Amino acid sequence: MSTEPFASVEIIAAKRDHQELSDAQIDWFVDAYVRNVIAEEQMSAMAMAILLNGMNRREIVRWTKAYIDSGETMDWSTLGRPTADKHSTGGVGDKITLPLAPLVAACGVSVPQLSGRGLGHTGGTLDKLESITGWRASLTNAEMFDVLNSIGAVICAASQTLAPADRRIYALRDVTGTVESIPLISASIMSKKIAEGTGALVLDVKVGSGAFMKTVEQARELAITMVGIGNDAGVTTRALLTAMDVPLGRTAGNALEVQESIEVLSGGGPTDVVELTVTLAREMLEASGASGLKDPAAALADGSAMDVWCAMISAQGGDLSAPLPTARETHEVFAETSGYLTKLDALAVGMASWRLGAGRARKEDSVQFGAGIQWHVGHGEVVTAGQKLFTLHTDEPARFESALEVLMQGYEIGAESEIAHRLPLIIDRVV
Amino acid sequence: MSTEPFASVEIIAAKRDHQELSDAQIDWFVDAYVRNVIAEEQMSAMAMAILLNGMNRREIVRWTKAYIDSGETMDWSTLGRPTADKHSTGGVGDKITLPLAPLVAACGVSVPQLSGRGLGHTGGTLDKLESITGWRASLTNAEMFDVLNSIGAVICAASQTLAPADRRIYALRDVTGTVESIPLISASIMSKKIAEGTGALVLDVKVGSGAFMKTVEQARELAITMVGIGNDAGVTTRALLTAMDVPLGRTAGNALEVQESIEVLSGGGPTDVVELTVTLAREMLEASGASGLKDPAAALADGSAMDVWCAMISAQGGDLSAPLPTARETHEVFAETSGYLTKLDALAVGMASWRLGAGRARKEDSVQFGAGIQWHVGHGEVVTAGQKLFTLHTDEPARFESALEVLMQGYEIGAESEIAHRLPLIIDRVV
Repeated sequence: MSTEPFASVEIIAAKRDHQELSDAQIDWFVDAYVRNVIAEEQMSAMAMAILLNGMNRREIVRWTKAYIDSGETMDWSTLGRPTADKHSTGGVGDKITLPLAPLVAACGVSVPQLSGRGLGHTGGTLDKLESITGWRASLTNAEMFDVLNSIGAVICAASQTLAPADRRIYALRDVTGTVESIPLISASIMSKKIAEGTGALVLDVKVGSGAFMKTVEQARELAITMVGIGNDAGVTTRALLTAMDVPLGRTAGNALEVQESIEVLSGGGPTDVVELTVTLAREMLEASGASGLKDPAAALADGSAMDVWCAMISAQGGDLSAPLPTARETHEVFAETSGYLTKLDALAVGMASWRLGAGRARKEDSVQFGAGIQWHVGHGEVVTAGQKLFTLHTDEPARFESALEVLMQGYEIGAESEIAHRLPLIIDRVV
Repeated sequence: MSTEPFASVEIIAAKRDHQELSDAQIDWFVDAYVRNVIAEEQMSAMAMAILLNGMNRREIVRWTKAYIDSGETMDWSTLGRPTADKHSTGGVGDKITLPLAPLVAACGVSVPQLSGRGLGHTGGTLDKLESITGWRASLTNAEMFDVLNSIGAVICAASQTLAPADRRIYALRDVTGTVESIPLISASIMSKKIAEGTGALVLDVKVGSGAFMKTVEQARELAITMVGIGNDAGVTTRALLTAMDVPLGRTAGNALEVQESIEVLSGGGPTDVVELTVTLAREMLEASGASGLKDPAAALADGSAMDVWCAMISAQGGDLSAPLPTARETHEVFAETSGYLTKLDALAVGMASWRLGAGRARKEDSVQFGAGIQWHVGHGEVVTAGQKLFTLHTDEPARFESALEVLMQGYEIGAESEIAHRLPLIIDRVV
């Protein structure tokens, strides 16, 4: 006879039949899955039932806790300094983590950032940083502590021992059509961030064509859910809903985005990237509960954020004196008429960058560090016939055709009155 | 690059998002699963999406066809005689197939019956027949043809090559909480019956506590769906909704039900079993389209159905001169008061029989041929204090306690005015 306290089919059937799962049922279900008592096909059926029938706040909090309890949790209390982290739900040209982590550290709050790699049309922070010669994403916990302690910011890969249940369930969701579930997305994000041990967390929930959440309503629901989970777990959590109808900055691609991040840290860079970086930095500092901190705008202007960046990259083996990788081939697109750039669609730009080789289709694929796209004109700006609009970069010129195919659908030149309405950069704030 | 015409996740996501699946999507999904291009976890997520979001008539017909196309189909046209079959959705004490198949054959219509084994509280036809010494469930297609051709009726196990997609998906549904889906139940039943090659089909859809469908509405929906699938596939199909709130006849258990079936074929037996057998036989004869046939009541009375039974059992090695197996131990329950049997619950009787060893909990379990239960008083009948109510049979006396525990909840003795309302034996007919 089995000594398990529950039958897996009965718990799946309960969620299927719109019943609320008890804490004990949730704890057992996730734990039994990790112990291989529950099979992959059973977790898949459960994921689909959760996606279609939902979970209430208590169930989501408990499901997240079960993920956390499946692995180790980190603790930065011996640092003796407040900690804060940021998570973005992913967007096109979203390189904000790169300038943000050193910026917040420069203002006096430590940033223990565990990041991921990109899948699909949005890039991953680790992929971008790996375009820096010698930079190493994998650190031991002791190395991570040392970098954080000595420099104040660290960006590295999450270890396999952090929320391993989520790692397995995420892989399963990817192949079973069960990614698009607010309870499952929230648990996946929040379990890693809570296990990471940050004291405060700011969520950047992207909205628009280039984001996972296409509408403000969906994004707000996700933000409210995640903020609730975080605060319930003792992590001071807040969220900003920010625009992803138009791509961020002027570049998408790994080395291209590192270059743009360095421009921001040098006191320049695109105004939207600067504004979002500074706004998120202020949120992180405030959420950390610390007082008397330097203002982020000042830390960008006086070079102190750049100093932290250089130290942080060097500490992980990165050689900032080496040139960043460039793609072997480029292709330029010029304006055929004059007018205004009435549309610049984030999804189209992201897909084009992905097709050029900047992203990966499957986990096991590699990325081209030099691949990507630059847009020389921003949404709503004046265009003159013959002006350079885009530069496409790739190591494989055969990729230009399919990238151009999607890019051409993603922008339009027209009259000023035809400029498409766009979302404000900062749409809303959820605390 | 994959040469598959579809991405499995996109088809799962379509059903998840309440979209209608195309014929080509359904054909590919089932075929790709059989080819192991689609993984078990993907089919599980799809099954849950189908259960929760449903399928329309066209999708169900096509899903069923995809099951059929995954294996071989049988053809009885060279018999030169009409064929008809019956399928019951399963009930307690439902031994109808045993007298019915020879009865219909005795009236002039051939019955090519592929049956299954029991799982849970309802028994399986093959388990019952295997209690006859020497009887063999597995026949080759040639043997099945020979028995059908020479005797007019055959009851045997479906071969592994008939609707193999359903065989695998059924096993998956069993562990993933996705059994209770009208599209999936319908496809499972109808694919096997259509592939079996019968010309006409009568469905006995059970309703009540002891049945899979607890309400008339659910049963009617299932009946309408299956009748539609059958007729669309060229099999003249109709359904009866019949009562399963009270168990059928006076016995549940393998050899016990064979004995009761023999009583019916001898012109006796419980009136409800006789009535249902004759009614289903008339439906099968009418659906076969043949005319000038003997009436089933006459074929029971004149012994011709019994002649076919004996020939049919002998043709598969069964020795009807050998005594039927009996259980090593019996336990009798007597009435403590006088009055009426105001309640006799089918599910309680079925569970008690199952706990006595008549059924199996897992596919790989064996059954006790002699185990089961007899009820000596029927629903609504007069009871005198001290009268014998039940006889429980098992090879393992340790089983009595748990069987009695459920049985005691399943009957009541009270005043005539307290007799529980019961469903009519034949509730409705769907053509």
